[in-house]
Amino acid sequence: MVGLLEQAANGEKVAVARLISLVERGGDAAREVVRHSRNNRDLYAVGITGAPGAGKSSLTDRLVSEARSSGAAQVGVIAVDPSSLFSGGAILGDRVRMQRHALDDGVFIRSMATRGHLGGLALAVPDALGVLAIAGVSIAFVETVGVGQVEVEVASDTDTTVVVVNPGWGDSIQANKAGLLEVADVFVINKADRPGASGTERDLDLALDMSAAFRHGRAASANDGLQDEPWRPPIVKTVALTGDGIADLWRAIGEHRRYLESRELLDANRRERLGKRVREIVASRIEQQVNQVVDAGALDSVMPLLAEARIDPYEAADRIMEIARDASQAGASASGIPREHEGTSSRGSQR
Amino acid sequence: MVGLLEQAANGEKVAVARLISLVERGGDAAREVVRHSRNNRDLYAVGITGAPGAGKSSLTDRLVSEARSSGAAQVGVIAVDPSSLFSGGAILGDRVRMQRHALDDGVFIRSMATRGHLGGLALAVPDALGVLAIAGVSIAFVETVGVGQVEVEVASDTDTTVVVVNPGWGDSIQANKAGLLEVADVFVINKADRPGASGTERDLDLALDMSAAFRHGRAASANDGLQDEPWRPPIVKTVALTGDGIADLWRAIGEHRRYLESRELLDANRRERLGKRVREIVASRIEQQVNQVVDAGALDSVMPLLAEARIDPYEAADRIMEIARDASQAGASASGIPREHEGTSSRGSQR
Repeated sequence: MVGLLEQAANGEKVAVARLISLVERGGDAAREVVRHSRNNRDLYAVGITGAPGAGKSSLTDRLVSEARSSGAAQVGVIAVDPSSLFSGGAILGDRVRMQRHALDDGVFIRSMATRGHLGGLALAVPDALGVLAIAGVSIAFVETVGVGQVEVEVASDTDTTVVVVNPGWGDSIQANKAGLLEVADVFVINKADRPGASGTERDLDLALDMSAAFRHGRAASANDGLQDEPWRPPIVKTVALTGDGIADLWRAIGEHRRYLESRELLDANRRERLGKRVREIVASRIEQQVNQVVDAGALDSVMPLLAEARIDPYEAADRIMEIARDASQAGASASGIPREHEGTSSRGSQR
Repeated sequence: MVGLLEQAANGEKVAVARLISLVERGGDAAREVVRHSRNNRDLYAVGITGAPGAGKSSLTDRLVSEARSSGAAQVGVIAVDPSSLFSGGAILGDRVRMQRHALDDGVFIRSMATRGHLGGLALAVPDALGVLAIAGVSIAFVETVGVGQVEVEVASDTDTTVVVVNPGWGDSIQANKAGLLEVADVFVINKADRPGASGTERDLDLALDMSAAFRHGRAASANDGLQDEPWRPPIVKTVALTGDGIADLWRAIGEHRRYLESRELLDANRRERLGKRVREIVASRIEQQVNQVVDAGALDSVMPLLAEARIDPYEAADRIMEIARDASQAGASASGIPREHEGTSSRGSQR
């Protein structure tokens, strides 16, 4: 482990990949990696989200080049893909165009899948960013597929969140629906050479007007001086395939970063996210404990009553909680539960 | 409460709406409603999911008419919208076209929002379906916005799951990416009058071939007789705006239902979903207990160390778990925690 950490600190890709696999799996090894990464906070994380097909991968690809040519010695990409057993090939294929960066020693690319229960990614992505920080990565892009609640949460758990839409009637409304307007620090209208780009820009602008007014109202009532000058997400038009507008997008990300830094919001935001992460770890650990009880037979013992509708799911949960409490009081975790259960990862139940 | 339940059983819409609000809020009242609904299992639930803008609302609207004219006395719609403070208006506007059904005494329409933490909807939607069952609803449609993990989970927690895509290169691949292929019982290519519909059909067909082969492999190795004749999701082309193909879609849903019923899979699937729901309730209840401890100061007590990177988030979680354990052993829930905390809903922490 120490060897891996040293190799990663020297920028060795294989070591970085192995460490990310470790944090993905969770458990004691993951904890040691996280412990080692806790002082590396120089990594700036940029989230990129939007509807499937909006061109997020191509944009990320362009942004990596931009970051590299503007002097970043080490750049990272975490591509978050949903879990899908038989679609593994398709997803890999989609990443092929990133391959040219794979030959660049200064670029680390990693796909992470959303396996099993909800929430696993919310923990694994920040841990993976910690590994990239150990390797000296100063800027990393977190790209998510899809615009669901988890995906938006993971992408917005970054310093600057870029929301990608396409021209066309209704797209800004759909972004609105998916909760994307609220998390955006920068908007991108990608494929802006298609008809409807200026209409989409107007729609977004209008939505932001409403949003800014609303936020201003909240800030005023909270009497918070720092919020006096709220950040208004700029709208950047790009054509990722040709590279048009990418420099503007890169500049907009930099402006947002300077906005945060000049108001000491960068550290404040990161502290808030740390607190949220602790909550998530606590929740996942508890879930694991419950799963041990449930899997050890507590659910099976109530299923017959449940199947016959003699109890409802909430009553079934009550009974399982009672069984768990009794087991815990009897010191089951020290004596009754087999050793291998104790060794499972804190995230094992979520994958 | 008993009065409300009686009124709902008589099909009174106001009572149904109030009961759904109760189960949405969680807590003791929700539990009583769920207890009363546990024997009403005649409701058949159809999930409808797909990318934003695919036309799910219009399809649902058409399916409601289809269900009504084919003899369903009471039809329900649960429209699951993501939480968005200032987009409330847009979402409401989107539901306006459903208003014609709102005048129909045999149709219950309800929007539910995804508030706060993940997972709340996974509990609230089945509870709301229970209320609809009390009101005599025999078929209900659960329509979700977006194709994220939570949305797909909610839509697939139904008897028949309809996945909606649109014509166009890549859409089937995007569906694949979002994990939609695996949950689909019926595919719809909506807006099938646009170019590319037959190409999308071919793509889906191919993806299903791969998937079927894969499933067959699994089934064969599991040696499970029931799986001998796997269900292959039919692909239906529709134009929701004109109504083209809706009768075919309705027929496909009916065929899937008969497939499940003839193999006793309907009850088996429902039992499996019940077990999953119990797990979710247990997890949410424990999470609530921990949140009480976290909110009572445990997180605040570790934040300074965390902010200075003297501990990492996992160590912070350990300390909070210790505090929670100590509090629980000291009988804090009986004496130390203020009364109002005990009265909060089992889902309160997730909203």
